[in-house]
Amino acid sequence: MSEFELDSRLSADTFPVGSYNVCKILLMNDARWPWLILVPKRIGLEEIYQAEEEDQAKILAETVKASQALKNLTGCDKINIAAIGNIVRQLHIHIVARNDDDPNWPGPVWGFGERQPYEETYTRILLNKLREELSIEPDFENRCR
Amino acid sequence: MSEFELDSRLSADTFPVGSYNVCKILLMNDARWPWLILVPKRIGLEEIYQAEEEDQAKILAETVKASQALKNLTGCDKINIAAIGNIVRQLHIHIVARNDDDPNWPGPVWGFGERQPYEETYTRILLNKLREELSIEPDFENRCR
Repeated sequence: MSEFELDSRLSADTFPVGSYNVCKILLMNDARWPWLILVPKRIGLEEIYQAEEEDQAKILAETVKASQALKNLTGCDKINIAAIGNIVRQLHIHIVARNDDDPNWPGPVWGFGERQPYEETYTRILLNKLREELSIEPDFENRCR
Repeated sequence: MSEFELDSRLSADTFPVGSYNVCKILLMNDARWPWLILVPKRIGLEEIYQAEEEDQAKILAETVKASQALKNLTGCDKINIAAIGNIVRQLHIHIVARNDDDPNWPGPVWGFGERQPYEETYTRILLNKLREELSIEPDFENRCR
């Protein structure tokens, strides 16, 4: 039996935050907007309607929990949630904290400009804050981060 | 007690398709891409995490059902789902059928170019097809459409 593997493009653009029951949680390495990505640890899943019904409910619950945590942490004006996947087909859910003075408000973040990587010290602080707010530990393979 | 009212901008840009248990279903009047909008008939709801837990599950189930129906009807390459709401704050969920030869593939549909209204005869045919695929009747107030 093959194991779930995170798409290499998702992995290249993000920091691993940790895992809920079904989804891996990633932080997009883009300082323009706090941006989480949830990836259900299921093989070959591209559309939410393809997931088992039980998984669908868990993916929703985890999306809601992460959205609320991101809102609490950032005090943002609006949470944007999306499952697009036109380029990276592995099902992944964007949760983005938006503010009315951010670089593309009120337009979408997808396809807009270039990522601005976080400054390294800030990344560590942010990851710790996120884990606290999301109530998760880093995954075993990422403990050194 | 006040009644649920559809935001006037959503109403202006769409055709009413019908209703599921919790959500009104609208067809965006934009011939560039088949585009449904689901609006939970709840007052003052802006973020999915603000909905009652039972409603959250129903909104998800209805989103999944509508996505599957849109995929079946269009045979599209990818379904894009999003709750953004930076401009219209009333919670509404976009479900868009995307194809790799559409006008902004693989970029997002939001904020891209101008809507291209459907030709009238085609609208009627499409609405009927959609109602068939979604297994819904027009809402009472839209029976004449």
